[in-house]
Amino acid sequence: MLNIGIIGAGRIGKVHLQSIVYHVKDAKVKSIADPFMDGETKAFIEGMGVNEIYTDYKKILGDEEIDAVLICSPTDTHASISIEAINAGKHVFCEKPVDLTIEEIMKVKNALEGKNLKFFVGFNRRFDHNFAAIRAAVGAGKIGEPHIVKITSRDPAPPNPKYIKSSGGMFMDMTIHDFDMACFLVDSGVEEVYVQSAVLVDKAIGEQGDVDTAVITLKMANGALCVIDNSRRAAYGYDQRAEVFGSKGMVATANDTLSTAVIADENGVAGEKPLYFFLERYMQSFTKEMCDFVDAVVNGTDVPVGIEAGLQSVKIALAAKKSVETGLPVKI
Amino acid sequence: MLNIGIIGAGRIGKVHLQSIVYHVKDAKVKSIADPFMDGETKAFIEGMGVNEIYTDYKKILGDEEIDAVLICSPTDTHASISIEAINAGKHVFCEKPVDLTIEEIMKVKNALEGKNLKFFVGFNRRFDHNFAAIRAAVGAGKIGEPHIVKITSRDPAPPNPKYIKSSGGMFMDMTIHDFDMACFLVDSGVEEVYVQSAVLVDKAIGEQGDVDTAVITLKMANGALCVIDNSRRAAYGYDQRAEVFGSKGMVATANDTLSTAVIADENGVAGEKPLYFFLERYMQSFTKEMCDFVDAVVNGTDVPVGIEAGLQSVKIALAAKKSVETGLPVKI
Amino acid sequence: MLNIGIIGAGRIGKVHLQSIVYHVKDAKVKSIADPFMDGETKAFIEGMGVNEIYTDYKKILGDEEIDAVLICSPTDTHASISIEAINAGKHVFCEKPVDLTIEEIMKVKNALEGKNLKFFVGFNRRFDHNFAAIRAAVGAGKIGEPHIVKITSRDPAPPNPKYIKSSGGMFMDMTIHDFDMACFLVDSGVEEVYVQSAVLVDKAIGEQGDVDTAVITLKMANGALCVIDNSRRAAYGYDQRAEVFGSKGMVATANDTLSTAVIADENGVAGEKPLYFFLERYMQSFTKEMCDFVDAVVNGTDVPVGIEAGLQSVKIALAAKKSVETGLPVKI
Amino acid sequence: MLNIGIIGAGRIGKVHLQSIVYHVKDAKVKSIADPFMDGETKAFIEGMGVNEIYTDYKKILGDEEIDAVLICSPTDTHASISIEAINAGKHVFCEKPVDLTIEEIMKVKNALEGKNLKFFVGFNRRFDHNFAAIRAAVGAGKIGEPHIVKITSRDPAPPNPKYIKSSGGMFMDMTIHDFDMACFLVDSGVEEVYVQSAVLVDKAIGEQGDVDTAVITLKMANGALCVIDNSRRAAYGYDQRAEVFGSKGMVATANDTLSTAVIADENGVAGEKPLYFFLERYMQSFTKEMCDFVDAVVNGTDVPVGIEAGLQSVKIALAAKKSVETGLPVKI
Repeated sequence: MLNIGIIGAGRIGKVHLQSIVYHVKDAKVKSIADPFMDGETKAFIEGMGVNEIYTDYKKILGDEEIDAVLICSPTDTHASISIEAINAGKHVFCEKPVDLTIEEIMKVKNALEGKNLKFFVGFNRRFDHNFAAIRAAVGAGKIGEPHIVKITSRDPAPPNPKYIKSSGGMFMDMTIHDFDMACFLVDSGVEEVYVQSAVLVDKAIGEQGDVDTAVITLKMANGALCVIDNSRRAAYGYDQRAEVFGSKGMVATANDTLSTAVIADENGVAGEKPLYFFLERYMQSFTKEMCDFVDAVVNGTDVPVGIEAGLQSVKIALAAKKSVETGLPVKI
Repeated sequence: MLNIGIIGAGRIGKVHLQSIVYHVKDAKVKSIADPFMDGETKAFIEGMGVNEIYTDYKKILGDEEIDAVLICSPTDTHASISIEAINAGKHVFCEKPVDLTIEEIMKVKNALEGKNLKFFVGFNRRFDHNFAAIRAAVGAGKIGEPHIVKITSRDPAPPNPKYIKSSGGMFMDMTIHDFDMACFLVDSGVEEVYVQSAVLVDKAIGEQGDVDTAVITLKMANGALCVIDNSRRAAYGYDQRAEVFGSKGMVATANDTLSTAVIADENGVAGEKPLYFFLERYMQSFTKEMCDFVDAVVNGTDVPVGIEAGLQSVKIALAAKKSVETGLPVKI
Repeated sequence: MLNIGIIGAGRIGKVHLQSIVYHVKDAKVKSIADPFMDGETKAFIEGMGVNEIYTDYKKILGDEEIDAVLICSPTDTHASISIEAINAGKHVFCEKPVDLTIEEIMKVKNALEGKNLKFFVGFNRRFDHNFAAIRAAVGAGKIGEPHIVKITSRDPAPPNPKYIKSSGGMFMDMTIHDFDMACFLVDSGVEEVYVQSAVLVDKAIGEQGDVDTAVITLKMANGALCVIDNSRRAAYGYDQRAEVFGSKGMVATANDTLSTAVIADENGVAGEKPLYFFLERYMQSFTKEMCDFVDAVVNGTDVPVGIEAGLQSVKIALAAKKSVETGLPVKI
Repeated sequence: MLNIGIIGAGRIGKVHLQSIVYHVKDAKVKSIADPFMDGETKAFIEGMGVNEIYTDYKKILGDEEIDAVLICSPTDTHASISIEAINAGKHVFCEKPVDLTIEEIMKVKNALEGKNLKFFVGFNRRFDHNFAAIRAAVGAGKIGEPHIVKITSRDPAPPNPKYIKSSGGMFMDMTIHDFDMACFLVDSGVEEVYVQSAVLVDKAIGEQGDVDTAVITLKMANGALCVIDNSRRAAYGYDQRAEVFGSKGMVATANDTLSTAVIADENGVAGEKPLYFFLERYMQSFTKEMCDFVDAVVNGTDVPVGIEAGLQSVKIALAAKKSVETGLPVKI
């Protein structure tokens, strides 16, 4: 039985807690730490059977019975806490992005050198049933050599503009999932990035120096071309689709809905909107990634999304930001 | 070049005229007859290049240059004009149903005996791209032995109740297409019919002694079970679907639409309604059946829908009416 | 916290155990009884944190701390154990069918008279996301007055013919869900039943006096017509669709799949087969019904599927059997 | 009755001939010219009722009874023949592209100045039912302000590499339709182009200095972003889809198929491949554009796709070629 400590009791920390309690056999959550723990959160955690609740995450790192930690704190603490945890001999599951800079991620990478510890980056979408089905079809050669990758990723509503700065902007906060997805779907790195972007959703986002709409072209290392389109606001909800086209065919996925019900009336034939946002859409993937993390630690299997993947996606995001600044394609 | 005469210049007569002018290579329409020929109709016919326009169809039958006639007159004249045409040595394309009674159809059948003439019954839906694709899949064994046939057939709007009597009622006028379709899809006759029906659309239809909604079960001669559901009024338009389920799988078709466009907005994800009614939905099938008729006459190929098919569908329709009267299953 | 005892540790008993442990907040399983408890089952139950494991269900009924029982034993024991449980003052969740005879179900109904106990019949499909969406649309008047109900229900593989007798045959074991669904979707009882059926899947089923393929017509009390089509074997898997057509439109559902992935290649454009069988397809509905049962007991809300629903579906199933025997429609 | 002369009796010339004969009321083809006229072509033309068949197109231009000409000759003759026709007082329908250079197209534009003649560029896809439905939805404000335009355009098979040079390469020959479509769908010009491209289908195409796979980003004048993805070879056939995403929603189209039939068996649930290539897919659009051309001439209505549209698409194509050469975005 793996003992896990969760650092950060925000939305995603709670999701992981729930996944472990309900769905992960070989692990239990021993303790949770968060400096800002309100009563509701505390009650939720206790309701899940966790009684060691701290404000200081160092109590978790200092607990010798803890085997692994989940780092669900704000992005700018991911790298430093990761390094502390590694040095304390803990396996680490770290939410994405590992950091907004290459330098800090390299420090984490260096800390891992020579240690026999697992480091898992929380790119949960790799564990989504739809994207996993694309990857499986591509991996099985069903579409031949990949030529074109297309990812549509549109949020139902923009974040609070105040949140933009700390999140690193759209590419680091939102598109980073799509960058990782592009690499995952065709099992390849990225060589060059070009971005066409605009502020079409919310001027306040532009005033923060960020964009809210983008078409991003990637030249993949394996020769394939990739295009990602992003918007911070799709009126019909969370739009998460992907397609890989290759020498023998194409595999594509549609959005998930709450039901398959379709109503035909004098106005037309209407189905449901996509599931509302990432918690609804990707809940199963959060569970799946946690199972895989625990499996990697307990059974010594390979981590499917390690520090290299965390590094790669941030490199692409930084190149994307540079492409916006320069108006030019940027090599990685 | 086959010379054709058209008897009846109503809606369907005009459709056939247009098909022949635009799409049938080896035939031309030499003359058209209708006792009630208005100015607009006459202009339309002349615009199609036909100058021999009569009120009396006997002029067509008496024209030795005419090889074949299309009988598009009212249902109660189909059989008698067919017999006259056969006796005049003309090949015949007759709109469905051949007659409302078995007796009259048998007279047509007898008239055909020993004559080397083609008799084609206008079950145009057999020539529709969707239903033909089902028939092809079933015929090719793709779904194995047929077990269950399902036909949905709903009109966008009921006919004028005054028209009910002369049309022979819903089974003879509307469902007759579905009866023929059931036989066509699995290449089998029908042994028994049971009808559950109701008047749910328009009370005036009930007052004419007819029904407007029905679920009809057929026991097919080949052992398959079939169900047809009918309504005289679907708010979303003309609903024309079919499905054949068998030992190895299932083949099914959806409705046709004007475009594949789908609009996603805050209300949902909406596609178009089906094509409005039979002229829109089945236009290509009218052309295709006319090509096949001309081909059968010119090249001596078999008629795909002959007098036996015309007889069979009327027998089923009569059994369906009897099932409504008795509330019991009726053997054929 | 509601204390639950589970009677019967077969497949469905385990499903309910898992649902309660993982997803039901206000209840816990205190004990489980089954006369045939193998090691694997015992280990599974203990793994779920239940330590009171009995061979004799009477120990559960005699436990004063137990508030409610789930009856997951063989069908022929449902009624008698239900009555014992009621007399012991327990709330009851009983798997369908309550019994194969009206007489026994009436005894359960009588036992409930005057008791302030909840009795919930396990028609889980009512809690399925797709069927619930149809019911919601119909209930909200989106399709107007219901005219035609269509239910397709086909299993991926037939049961062992030896199992036929004890299960009561196809109508009592399989179609009973569809009978309940028809009533649920349009909130109406059934007045008359007519069945066309055949043995097309497995002759051994016919030798047991049962059928494996059927088209069943129901005349609903509210005037709507309903048709159910069943097969014991669909080559492409578990086919579970429904459609309600009414005066203002239609609502219909499609099958669920593991992913939305579609592969286009030189052979065509192919999506996945439906989810394999009822455990895969209806897992969420099992959880949902358990939540509703616990809610009804704890908060005193109405039971959504009570003894009347259990009685109704068996009455229809018996009428269906009689229709097969007589070849005639049967009034209820 | 408009008298039309067709210059060029290749594939597309024949398509237009057929459209006019079968579907255009107010026009007839008086003569056709082609220097390379084989027997089969001649027979086809005569079969369509055209008897004036020339090798020299100047006979058409010199015929005073001819009101309008269709220029279906090789691309490098479009501009010069257009100018001759204009100077001879003929209305012109010119196949796309008008020329491979801006200079030549400007000469055509200049020739049109002050003349009361219609000049129609054959961007037939604007008249396609699916793309027209997108345009109508966008024009009606159903998706709000356009933010992202996506066009997928993949051919079923690459052209003969020998043909590459004379066609002007992929952007001028194939993507030019997509450039025009982008402008059409959101009624806007293009400001900047960036291309990621590769030779992934056929090395011989690369040896001709062309590419066969591309992802093209356009910055539209109205602020929207557009991405086009192209391949010269889709194993599953002609892939022609588009999507416009905006502030209020999205409109998207799928491919057309020969039928809606779907076969479910143990391998999955499979539908048909898209219609094979442009003649199958766009046949109705060829007819529609010819009707619109004749309507513009006869009734003096505006030409929906004039010389400006012809100029615009070539400018974008040239910028795309330059982007490939320089690896940089190119302003227009």
